Amino acid sequence: MKGYAMLRIGESGWIEKERPQCGPNDAICKPLALAICTSDVHTLWEGAIGERHNMILGHEGCAEVVEVGNLVKDFKPGDRVLVPAITPDWNSLEAQGGYPMHSGGMLSGWKFSNFKDGVFSEFFHVNDADGNLAHLPDNINTVDACMLSDMVPTGFHGVELADVQFGDTVLVIGIGPVGLMAVAGASLRGASRIIAVGTRPVCVEAAKGYGASDFISYKEGPIFQQVLDMTDGKGVDKIVIAGGGVETFAEAVKCLKAGGKIGNVNYLGSGDSIEIPRVEWGVGMGHKQIVGGLTPGGRLRMEKLAALVSSGRLDLSPLSTHVFEGWEHIEEALFLMRDKPADLIKPVIKIED
Amino acid sequence: MKGYAMLRIGESGWIEKERPQCGPNDAICKPLALAICTSDVHTLWEGAIGERHNMILGHEGCAEVVEVGNLVKDFKPGDRVLVPAITPDWNSLEAQGGYPMHSGGMLSGWKFSNFKDGVFSEFFHVNDADGNLAHLPDNINTVDACMLSDMVPTGFHGVELADVQFGDTVLVIGIGPVGLMAVAGASLRGASRIIAVGTRPVCVEAAKGYGASDFISYKEGPIFQQVLDMTDGKGVDKIVIAGGGVETFAEAVKCLKAGGKIGNVNYLGSGDSIEIPRVEWGVGMGHKQIVGGLTPGGRLRMEKLAALVSSGRLDLSPLSTHVFEGWEHIEEALFLMRDKPADLIKPVIKIED
Amino acid sequence: MKGYAMLRIGESGWIEKERPQCGPNDAICKPLALAICTSDVHTLWEGAIGERHNMILGHEGCAEVVEVGNLVKDFKPGDRVLVPAITPDWNSLEAQGGYPMHSGGMLSGWKFSNFKDGVFSEFFHVNDADGNLAHLPDNINTVDACMLSDMVPTGFHGVELADVQFGDTVLVIGIGPVGLMAVAGASLRGASRIIAVGTRPVCVEAAKGYGASDFISYKEGPIFQQVLDMTDGKGVDKIVIAGGGVETFAEAVKCLKAGGKIGNVNYLGSGDSIEIPRVEWGVGMGHKQIVGGLTPGGRLRMEKLAALVSSGRLDLSPLSTHVFEGWEHIEEALFLMRDKPADLIKPVIKIED
Amino acid sequence: MKGYAMLRIGESGWIEKERPQCGPNDAICKPLALAICTSDVHTLWEGAIGERHNMILGHEGCAEVVEVGNLVKDFKPGDRVLVPAITPDWNSLEAQGGYPMHSGGMLSGWKFSNFKDGVFSEFFHVNDADGNLAHLPDNINTVDACMLSDMVPTGFHGVELADVQFGDTVLVIGIGPVGLMAVAGASLRGASRIIAVGTRPVCVEAAKGYGASDFISYKEGPIFQQVLDMTDGKGVDKIVIAGGGVETFAEAVKCLKAGGKIGNVNYLGSGDSIEIPRVEWGVGMGHKQIVGGLTPGGRLRMEKLAALVSSGRLDLSPLSTHVFEGWEHIEEALFLMRDKPADLIKPVIKIED
Repeated sequence: MKGYAMLRIGESGWIEKERPQCGPNDAICKPLALAICTSDVHTLWEGAIGERHNMILGHEGCAEVVEVGNLVKDFKPGDRVLVPAITPDWNSLEAQGGYPMHSGGMLSGWKFSNFKDGVFSEFFHVNDADGNLAHLPDNINTVDACMLSDMVPTGFHGVELADVQFGDTVLVIGIGPVGLMAVAGASLRGASRIIAVGTRPVCVEAAKGYGASDFISYKEGPIFQQVLDMTDGKGVDKIVIAGGGVETFAEAVKCLKAGGKIGNVNYLGSGDSIEIPRVEWGVGMGHKQIVGGLTPGGRLRMEKLAALVSSGRLDLSPLSTHVFEGWEHIEEALFLMRDKPADLIKPVIKIED
Repeated sequence: MKGYAMLRIGESGWIEKERPQCGPNDAICKPLALAICTSDVHTLWEGAIGERHNMILGHEGCAEVVEVGNLVKDFKPGDRVLVPAITPDWNSLEAQGGYPMHSGGMLSGWKFSNFKDGVFSEFFHVNDADGNLAHLPDNINTVDACMLSDMVPTGFHGVELADVQFGDTVLVIGIGPVGLMAVAGASLRGASRIIAVGTRPVCVEAAKGYGASDFISYKEGPIFQQVLDMTDGKGVDKIVIAGGGVETFAEAVKCLKAGGKIGNVNYLGSGDSIEIPRVEWGVGMGHKQIVGGLTPGGRLRMEKLAALVSSGRLDLSPLSTHVFEGWEHIEEALFLMRDKPADLIKPVIKIED
Repeated sequence: MKGYAMLRIGESGWIEKERPQCGPNDAICKPLALAICTSDVHTLWEGAIGERHNMILGHEGCAEVVEVGNLVKDFKPGDRVLVPAITPDWNSLEAQGGYPMHSGGMLSGWKFSNFKDGVFSEFFHVNDADGNLAHLPDNINTVDACMLSDMVPTGFHGVELADVQFGDTVLVIGIGPVGLMAVAGASLRGASRIIAVGTRPVCVEAAKGYGASDFISYKEGPIFQQVLDMTDGKGVDKIVIAGGGVETFAEAVKCLKAGGKIGNVNYLGSGDSIEIPRVEWGVGMGHKQIVGGLTPGGRLRMEKLAALVSSGRLDLSPLSTHVFEGWEHIEEALFLMRDKPADLIKPVIKIED
Repeated sequence: MKGYAMLRIGESGWIEKERPQCGPNDAICKPLALAICTSDVHTLWEGAIGERHNMILGHEGCAEVVEVGNLVKDFKPGDRVLVPAITPDWNSLEAQGGYPMHSGGMLSGWKFSNFKDGVFSEFFHVNDADGNLAHLPDNINTVDACMLSDMVPTGFHGVELADVQFGDTVLVIGIGPVGLMAVAGASLRGASRIIAVGTRPVCVEAAKGYGASDFISYKEGPIFQQVLDMTDGKGVDKIVIAGGGVETFAEAVKCLKAGGKIGNVNYLGSGDSIEIPRVEWGVGMGHKQIVGGLTPGGRLRMEKLAALVSSGRLDLSPLSTHVFEGWEHIEEALFLMRDKPADLIKPVIKIED
């Protein structure tokens, strides 16, 4: 079968591989639509997860099941499915303890285009089909379905980590596709005011639609100062970090109320350390909670989040600004994600309807 | 009245002051016993909270009520009381939101020897007597009662922040009096293994009594390396930081499991930033939660923790290694705390029985 | 001063009383607008809280401050304020433990027209002004402001008790004004499907606007059966009970998933016992959590919920179907609430702009 | 192979069956020691789970692995293992949602001697060996190990459901083996006072050892009245129900504080409904939370709880009052459990060392 792969750091292209084997708990799927993630860019051109040879890329997409193992109960060939980016081993100690994304080791619930071939391939393998696939609802199109692999669950996880409550003022740092979903999630969890940090007009427009009420540009001075100015010096209740780098946390801590929470869902690709400013962190005593986490993944989460789309409460159409048709556009879409033209949020490739 | 005060940074002595006024919700108390806290040392000699002039020191003690305001319902002159170091404004927005210790601003629930005169005085003022005092149970002696002001609630708060659960392996960094209470608290919350970092023999001995099962010396190499060695490379479930400095957090993050939690109750007196190592923190995605907080304070907490002492489940006698009798020993006790002789855990001064 | 009072069970009318005294922490207010609550009907005509003589009725309204005690910091005469139905003693043990509505005893945070005179009076007393009043935002009109006293906080508390999460299917039983706010709250917490039980067209219409997606009439058979039919026999994730009686809980338990939660905010005025069906409750082992609670009350909650209205995320205008102008309409409005004509949701009386 | 089975309701005996098949994720084990549970008595003589024919009984024991499926990674023939009574399907939606004990349907995580043959057999089958077995620590003997299947995890779950916190006063109703473990668990979670309801001297003695401080006999009047008398009318903070019947809940509600929690782990074998008294439940508004649940089961829980035993923090020896040696004593032990002589807590049968 053919797949679009990272040949080595900085180099990509089509390769020919054996179709993967299907274990008794597993499924083999073929893509209906695929999307490019910034992580693909980090992996391929920045070597963020280290060197990989001839590893098929991609972890966002929806698919049709073509084969299932003999212990799979709820899926059969021909089923159209949502595929989460994170596919945990549900019987692992970590999953039993509430952290499926770390099943088998920190971050090891992330398998596609990390520990095994990804989804940019004629056929791909899904471990534990009953635990990790979800049926694609009829009224969700394949393009929107791709957003449910990673963008929605990751952005919403930031909101869960920040523990947004009714009436909270929430700062969302970064309004790329994950940040936009954090805005949407904060809005759906009852935030009263959502301050978004970002400047690209296409993203600002989408953020407004998702419920952001105020905007800040990092170009106009330190974020924390602008936030304090906007909030009469009080700061915000909760913060979702969905962009920036290791230096962003210091800004966040400085404009967070005592007792506030920071939920990070931004992959920190470089830098030695996150620096937490001692004084603004209450000399260690300010109850400014800091946590960052990979989205949980798996079937239940897919079903729950898909239900928000299916019921019309979450409109994903603003995310997919660039939709291509056909395998031949994978590379173009990937390069587009790397180059990030002004009007891009997410590039999606429709393979089959 | 007389009080033992910080005259300015680095200088202390007895001063004469007006006896404080009692507002309608308040109480005036006279000490039965007092204890010295490391914070007194930080405040006086290190200027940790900035310059203060003629501020009476002290925030640990038990007392007798001598006057109450006309709205006070549950206390009257002659009552013997526990006095928490943290005395929140309970109607503040912060307290309503679950963070009484930050009532009126980050850390502002801490008033004694910070925003107002402390307890090393013939008479001291307690705001909101009904909300902040607790009756001293008959079977708790005045020396042990002093440990309930700060040492017990602070150490136990570390355990609450770290969210210790049945069977957890817990690392407690620092086994001064707060760390010892973190060990006791972890034990009382059902930890199965408690690894303590500390070397002073008197503290090690006490820690064993409180339930520590393993000991580590920071002198024998990086803490994280020793912890990983002791746990087959898996790390610990939870960490309470009760000692060290800003650099301690990096060690902690390196030996904490994904999904683990760090609860800090150590006052970080110096350094610009706490540095969280990016890679070991799961590139921002490892669900290693970091939070530090001042203990809640107030009456309910005093009553709950005193009940553990009163019922014999928590033995505080190992903490008070040096007990003096009479006001004239305040200075000696304070200097002892500064000089920390090998056999010291806490110095206490009995004023009256 | 004049007030509209319950003279005895079943009889009401205007009476003359002394203007209440203002303690040092308190405020005296005069109403800007008032609303009638079903509880007023229960109290007056059904004797739900027992006999009361010449007790001024009412616990919903907004007001202008006319006097404050000398310890009040954040309010002054002339301030326009939101007034919560529940005004806790914030320094009570119960409030310190997280249950301000039970300060001083179960349900004792509810004081207006229960333990003291209510708000249907030229002047009324508010205990702990700093803790219990909130400034009325400029862009909230006085009619909507009345909904923030009880309807919004109570309906939303049902959602908090039921712990609604992203994508949940939620059943809301009862769509009077509290139930409507439960629908709105469930929607704002990210429910994907909201099934509402109720039949009055004006309420059904409002419920649709607030996010209900399916409707059930108790007239068409047992609720649980209809819910199971609608959900392929799976039942719902969470239930808010905002109507019915003691018998409603059995229905709820029968259509709740294992691991689901029931949040009750309906005042149960009669019946000896709530009956939980043993088998459907998993023979005691099904993790179907049942909890009911009075809304927390107080200032922070007012501010947070008002922020949702102020920011345009929550539209309260559909609730106030009948708006009167002038004190003379209090009785008419009260009788209207008792008689519940088909087009009524809430009657409100504007006193002053 | 031979197994001791329920032939039909009321009749039991040895039968011959095929040794179970081992699926790719599974293990086949042979018992090292077995224990009788009251549930075996309910199942066999009371028909609590309905009719069963020739179903091998038993769900408490420890074992040696004799065969594993080819996907099993962490266990191999010859391994000595702890076996939980509850063996969830970890990839089920329920487990993903945090309720593994209800995987595949309410209570369906309970499989042994319910949906499939139990452990009183030469060989028994364990689904998902990696997810449901745990290595037996060297320093736990096989008799104590049997208590980790059900008694410890169930009693401790009651404490988790009741959410016991530092200093709480906890009522434990029933001090059979599960109730005793609830006492031990409440003690290990930091309760300050544990009031136990029970009268059998052997149980009272054990309860004292596990930390119960006060005792109540249901023979001396209503439990709730005695509890109120003991607590100055205040009631208790938390309640674990580990005995009694459907009528026990009313007693519990009557002596629980507003904001308190009831955790039930008692299998309710008869009665139509649990009756919650309306008035004492705060007319639906008292925040007296009621929840009951089957213990979670699985490997992580086994490992965590075993660590408490292994580290010497939990002594299980008082539970096994009657220890037999050899298969031939199974029936005698079972009958003993049914007849409950005065000196019995748990009967255990050692099969092999």
